[in-house]
Formats: sequence, structure tokens, C-alpha cells
Amino acid sequence: MTDFERIFHPQRLAIVGVSADSRSIGFGNGILVACRAMGFAGEILPVNPRGGTFAGQEIYRSVEDIPGDIDFAAIAVPAESVPDALEACRRKGAAGAEVVTAGFAELGTPEGIALEQRVKEVAARGIRVVGPNCFGIYCPRSGLTLLPGPDLSRESGPVAFLSQSGGMSIDLAHTGKWMGIRFSKVVSFGNGADLRETELLRYLGDDPETGVVAMYVEGVEDGDAFFEAARSVGRRKPVVVYKGGLSEAGRRAVVGHTASMGGSRAIWSGVLRQVNAVQVGDLAEIAQACLAFALLPARTYRGISMIGGGGALGVAAGDAAEANGISIPLLAPELQDRISAVLPKPGSSAGNPIDVANPFFPPEGLRRVLQLAAEDPRVELQVVTSLLYHYKSQAAAIGRSLAEVAPFRELAEAAGDAAEATGKPVIVILPSLKRGGDDLDVLDVLARARQAFLDRGVPVFDDIADALRAVGHLNAYYGRRDG
Amino acid sequence: MTDFERIFHPQRLAIVGVSADSRSIGFGNGILVACRAMGFAGEILPVNPRGGTFAGQEIYRSVEDIPGDIDFAAIAVPAESVPDALEACRRKGAAGAEVVTAGFAELGTPEGIALEQRVKEVAARGIRVVGPNCFGIYCPRSGLTLLPGPDLSRESGPVAFLSQSGGMSIDLAHTGKWMGIRFSKVVSFGNGADLRETELLRYLGDDPETGVVAMYVEGVEDGDAFFEAARSVGRRKPVVVYKGGLSEAGRRAVVGHTASMGGSRAIWSGVLRQVNAVQVGDLAEIAQACLAFALLPARTYRGISMIGGGGALGVAAGDAAEANGISIPLLAPELQDRISAVLPKPGSSAGNPIDVANPFFPPEGLRRVLQLAAEDPRVELQVVTSLLYHYKSQAAAIGRSLAEVAPFRELAEAAGDAAEATGKPVIVILPSLKRGGDDLDVLDVLARARQAFLDRGVPVFDDIADALRAVGHLNAYYGRRDG
Repeated sequence: MTDFERIFHPQRLAIVGVSADSRSIGFGNGILVACRAMGFAGEILPVNPRGGTFAGQEIYRSVEDIPGDIDFAAIAVPAESVPDALEACRRKGAAGAEVVTAGFAELGTPEGIALEQRVKEVAARGIRVVGPNCFGIYCPRSGLTLLPGPDLSRESGPVAFLSQSGGMSIDLAHTGKWMGIRFSKVVSFGNGADLRETELLRYLGDDPETGVVAMYVEGVEDGDAFFEAARSVGRRKPVVVYKGGLSEAGRRAVVGHTASMGGSRAIWSGVLRQVNAVQVGDLAEIAQACLAFALLPARTYRGISMIGGGGALGVAAGDAAEANGISIPLLAPELQDRISAVLPKPGSSAGNPIDVANPFFPPEGLRRVLQLAAEDPRVELQVVTSLLYHYKSQAAAIGRSLAEVAPFRELAEAAGDAAEATGKPVIVILPSLKRGGDDLDVLDVLARARQAFLDRGVPVFDDIADALRAVGHLNAYYGRRDG
Repeated sequence: MTDFERIFHPQRLAIVGVSADSRSIGFGNGILVACRAMGFAGEILPVNPRGGTFAGQEIYRSVEDIPGDIDFAAIAVPAESVPDALEACRRKGAAGAEVVTAGFAELGTPEGIALEQRVKEVAARGIRVVGPNCFGIYCPRSGLTLLPGPDLSRESGPVAFLSQSGGMSIDLAHTGKWMGIRFSKVVSFGNGADLRETELLRYLGDDPETGVVAMYVEGVEDGDAFFEAARSVGRRKPVVVYKGGLSEAGRRAVVGHTASMGGSRAIWSGVLRQVNAVQVGDLAEIAQACLAFALLPARTYRGISMIGGGGALGVAAGDAAEANGISIPLLAPELQDRISAVLPKPGSSAGNPIDVANPFFPPEGLRRVLQLAAEDPRVELQVVTSLLYHYKSQAAAIGRSLAEVAPFRELAEAAGDAAEATGKPVIVILPSLKRGGDDLDVLDVLARARQAFLDRGVPVFDDIADALRAVGHLNAYYGRRDG
């Protein structure tokens, strides 16, 4: 039995390949610094045959020199030394190790393939290996983190991510940090010489800390086993899959990247649908889907209200909703009249999309409109677009700063309160339309506004098409699972 | 004959509806302030029956009181006073006027429709009207600007934008500012009581300052005339069209927004293709297409090189290229060897996609790789992805700031030089993956980096799929036009 508890939450962590020499600082040093910055709670045990000290810690000359057992190891020595280092960790009782070093089967050379075979042989003797050619494990609860990763979020949450690509793992972890996605575990498994997609997916399916499993897959070792695992896990929690390398050039890149074999687009799409996995097409779409699955109650949302200032927003929302099979029901005349009474004139429209006429519609008005629109039983989710950047010229006109003038805290309170009071979730669209060198105030306010909404449990997206595509994924998943 | 020169570059501009009373400051005051901020070079002549002064300027009590003729007027009085104000401007010799006031046909009421009819009657007597229910004209060369718009770019450029929606016009103008899109003319024409899509499109087709015409259309007055104009203009310059309201809810929003009738998705897509217009689906796609048309030489780009640090970037690029009918040709072994000699080992790959192994590949290496990859005649465009945010942890480790450490100026020089030396354009992808409240340094560096690339004529996109979709639009347009 694999002791995943000791792998994800090690008490004693060896880092093999920490240099005392400031001229040869490498990945091992980076891992040590990053785990400390993350508040890793256990013991960190650095190793290097040349000994010395780094960051105030004495470096053991060998794994054998470490007193007592270890739980897990991060291995960052040159490729040819990896099998021996791994074997030493196995003898020290480690349940597992991550090998961040590259230069194995992904090279496509006989030497690289032979070296990876030796890693597999050590693993088969009783130590689980993550990698090689990977960025390792990020687990906020224990303080393990991806390479280079010193500033990832320390908060845990329901989203797990399995990635063949190290770059994709660190990019999603950073993206998730500001988007409000919190992770249970992220595993960059690289070449996947031992632990890889199917076994990790099964583990996360049973992991009570994980509510959503997202994956970046370049190729799978055993298609039948993988799809069966996806089907089984998918009955309990959503499985979001980005299969990279479905084009010719993409497949070529896959082989050089993680030594995997790709597959055809039609087969992947068909089978993922059959097993009720959620197929997405890029990093941004993974993130948006994870945000929606993590923050919205687990159900379908077939009808929405769309609230924004400016008629084209409603037009775009209508088009995006239709593209995702979501309806924006026309409200009853009586309800329209009550909403209309709250809206500025002229230029507003209460039919749904609800056009609040301009970007300065006050938070109390928004609160009231959300309460009213929720009275229509066909409205299951409410979508609010706010173009906060427009407050910048208003603020300038009265000699104040954007942060003082833009009522984002009050808007977040209104949205959060309305969602609670009505039981109908609210999502917010905050387009980022000013991003020049003279617009850092706008970017700052957008970041603060996003956080204010997230603090009230309200997910935020950059644009309406992204948001409704994510809601479409919920509808497809929960519709098939529960429908 | 309509005197468009006097409309877009007025010497004498009346602003009807400028209040001296600080408690009733409205759109007219906003227009005055904004035009001054834009450096409007002509005379500004404010009007209000109550007289007084605003911002140091005396307010005329009526249009008739203005000494001499006027060229153009901005009208921001209550809807019921608009026809008379317009008639007064006509008598003063104005070639045209923009009516920003709302409350006309878009209300759907008999009163609103009748009021708009009166506007049409005045226009028919000899003054061209932009609006009502619009944000007016932005023309950087003359200093006219959209509502509220005081901080739009003052630089002119080749992109014109016609928009039925005011919100869309101001949003694209702001987006274009930081993306590097420079405008010849932007016209928000709202309800289009007089001047509207077809006539403006024909004018811009002949306008030597305009090289690309983009449009946001909710409904057209005369489909045959519009499509014929699009076909005719499209023979000379690209016409990019976002038709909003192709869904049921979208159509409903259109009617309440600008009193237009929509149309069916199939008909629009089919006819736009027939006339070789470039159909796009949202604001971001308009902007991306305009950037590519404005900055890339006018031709097709069927084959590209893709250069980035991290294998998944190449995988994603391959998939995005295929989706847009673009090839990433495998380079010849001899050329691969020469490229490989410049790349770090292990983890790099020279086949194309070219994986430079990590985000810290130095600018001189990039310069060399671009020069080498350009030797393959199938490579017609080069795409470089740079994940600058990774320099943040590197900078922190050595106690310096991201702006000091990230070599964005040198990267921009390398890309610009290589494009010039090889005659093969370069585009750059700068994903914005850190955007939290503690990442303003990253956002600042991204804004500066974007500007550095733009200063060298290198367009920048947020992500590879967006960029290749835009290149796909060039291929479709120039392929049909010239192919």
C-alpha cells in the first residue's frame, strides 16, 4: 500500500542536492527555500556529498548520514546520480520521492531511456516516485511546494491538479492564487516513471480534501485503466481534463516534453464525454472551470439573470449564454416593473438582460435588483458585470483616487448578501480593460475588488464568455451525473 | 456632399448643454473637459440658456448667440430639446452634430419614436447627425473624444471603429490604448437616426488615414447596401465585424439598446464570408484582430515557428495552430542542430515548437534562435512566448526588484532586430499569470514589456490561442483577397 499521507504530509523531508557553494546553487536549494517560505512544518534534511551549510542548516554528506528514517525526499542531483540517491532514500524508509531532475526518457536517447528504466527498478523495490523531469508536489497543508514556487498560496482548498507538465502546474497554481482557486494537492509528475495519471486520479477520488480533480495530460500509459478511473471518480466529483497534443505539431512537442504518446482528437473527446469528464482546451479554461466547480453549489444552472450597465453587455451575454445552452428568461411584466422602478432612466432595461444604463449603478440598487430578479423561479444563477475602470475618470474629476471612489466593497457586500438571502448564487464579471503603464491604480482596484467578492464566496471572471462556458461545464457534468 | 472633414476635424465646436451650475454638471461638461484634455486644437463654444461660466469659459445663452459659423456640435441637452438645438446648429452652418442624449427610439415608446423622427427631419434639411443615444466621435488628430474619455490615446493610427454601442466604443478605445492599437476615427453612432453603418463604412473605405475598419453592429438598416459596401471596402482594406445579438436573448437586448433589428446567425456568417469580411465574436477578438491587421504586413502567414520555455507551451501552440489552419513545420535536422547548439540542456528541443527549456533563456539566445529559425522558408512568422513572472522569485532571491531583473528591454530589442534583419515578423505572447494584490510589480513589468515590444513594432498578445486566431483572420482575409 502506498502511504500517500507520508508523501503529501511528510514529517521528515530529505532534499538531496543542496549546495553550500553559492556558485552552484540549484533546484535543491530552491526547494529548501521555497518549503521554508511556505511554512513547511516538519524537519528539512539537506544532503550533498560536499557537506557544508546552507541557509543556516548543516548539510548531510549522504542520505545514509541522516539520523533516523525519512518520510519523503526531493531529489535534485544530476540525472546519472538519481537512481543511487533514490535507492538510498528507499533504504531510509521514505514512502516516496520527487525527482525534479530532467534528462531521462524525454531526451529520446538510449542513455536517457536506460536511466529512466533504472528509476523504475528502484521504485519497484518499494519507493513511490514522482517524476523525473517534474516540478514535484504542492500541498499547502504540509508546506510542500512546486519549483520554484516560494510564493504560492498557503491556504488549502478543494481543487487538486495533476499535470504531466511542470510549467502548467506552476502556471495554474499561480493563476489559481489570484483567481481564488485553493488547492488540496498539485502534482507535477513529468515523465511519470512510477506514480502517474491513473493511480493519482484514483487516490484523489478517495481523498476527502479534494472536491474537484483537474488534469493536464499529454499521454496516458493505459487508456482503458485511465478512462475507467475517470468514470469511477466522476461519479463522486468532477474530473476536468485538458488533453494537450491533439494536433500534429502538438504531438511532436509532447514526445520531446514528457516522452508520452498522444492520441486522436476524436477518440479523446468521445471517450471523455462517455465517462462524464469535463474536457477543456487550455490553461485558462482549466482555471475557470475549477473556479466554478469549487465555488458554485453542485448543480445545474439552466437559467440566469444578466445584469450590467450598457446595452452591448446584455447583447454579448445573450449570445454567450446561447452558445452554452443557458437561457436568460424574459421576466414577467410585473417583475420588470418592480425592477424598472429601481433603475436610472433613460437607457435602462428590465427585461433580462437587465441593463442598469451606466457603470455607476449604486450597490444598494444592485442589491435590490438581485433580490427581485431572484423571484423568478427560472433564474437559478445571477451574473453581474461591473466596469469599475469607468470610476477612474470620475475620481480624477473630483481629485480623488480610484480606490476611494469605486464602491467595490459595497458591491461585494450587495452580491454576497443577495446570494445568501435568495439562495441563488451570484457570479461577477470584472473586465480588465485598462492595463497600461498609467493604469496600475485600475489593476490594483480590480485585484482588491476580486478579493472582496471572493471573501463573500462570489467567483469573479474576466469576461462573460469565459464565465458562461464554465457554467456550461457545470451543466454538462451535473446534468449527466444527476439528471 | 457630407463634409466629413469638418465633422471629424472641426475648427469651431459648439457644445450644447454645458452647465455653469456645479450641481447639474452633465455630459456636456464632460465633453468639454475631455476635449480640452485631448488637446482639441480648435475653438470650443459652450452653450446653455442659463449662461454663466464653466472651466474659465463663458457659456453662450443660445447657439444663435455664437458669433460666426460652427463646424460641428456636441449636443447633450434633454431629449425633448434636441430637435430644436440641432436645428439651431444647422442654421449656424454646422456640417454635423453628435447627440449623446438617450431617450429616443430605443425606449420603444411612441414619444421616443416621434422624437427620433423629428431628429431625422432636421438632419434631412442639411446637417449630418451622429446618434442619438451614443458616445460620439473619437478622433485623436483633432482631439474629439468619446464620452467620458478624457484619457484616451492622443496618437493617431490606422484602425477605425464604428459602433452602435457606446459602451463598446469606449471599451475598445481603452483596450486599444494599452494593446497598442491606434485609431484614425472611432464613431459611436447609437440609434443611427442619420449617419450609420453603411455610409460611415463607405467613407472609411476611402479615408487614407484608415487601414482597417472594425465594426460593432447590432442591426443594419439596409442589408443589401451594407454587405455591398463591406464587399467594396474589403477589396481595399480589411473589414472586421462583430455582429451582436445573434441569439434570442441577444436580439431582445438589441431592441432595447439601439432600436435595431437583429438577424440570424447563419445568414450573417454566410454573407460576411461571401463579402470577405472578418467575423469576430466579442470585444477581445475585435481588438486582437485589429492589432494583428494593424501591425503585421498585409499577407498570409501559413507557417510559423513557436519559441517558448516549457514543453507544454509548445503543445498548446501546436494545438492552437492546427485549430487555425497554421502549420508549425518541423525544421530540417541540420537547422535543428544549429539551433540546439544555442539552447540550454537538458529540457530543450529544437524541432519546432522550439522549447528553450526554461523562462530565463537570455535575449541574445533568443535573437540567435529567431535568426536561425527564419532560415526555413516555410517559417513566415515567429511566435515567442515569455513567462516574465518567473523572474519575480529569482529577483526576490537576490534582493532585487522584478523590473531590474526581467530583461524585457533586451528581449524587445532581440525580437525587433530579428524581425527587421530577417524580414519575418515576430509576435510575442506575454501571459498575465500573476495578478493578485501582491503582484502589482508583475503587472507593471508586463505593461512596460508590452510597450517595449510595441516600440519595436512587435505585437503582444495575452495568450497563444488568441494570437493564432488573429493570425488566422489575416490568413482568411488576405488568402481570399489576394490568393
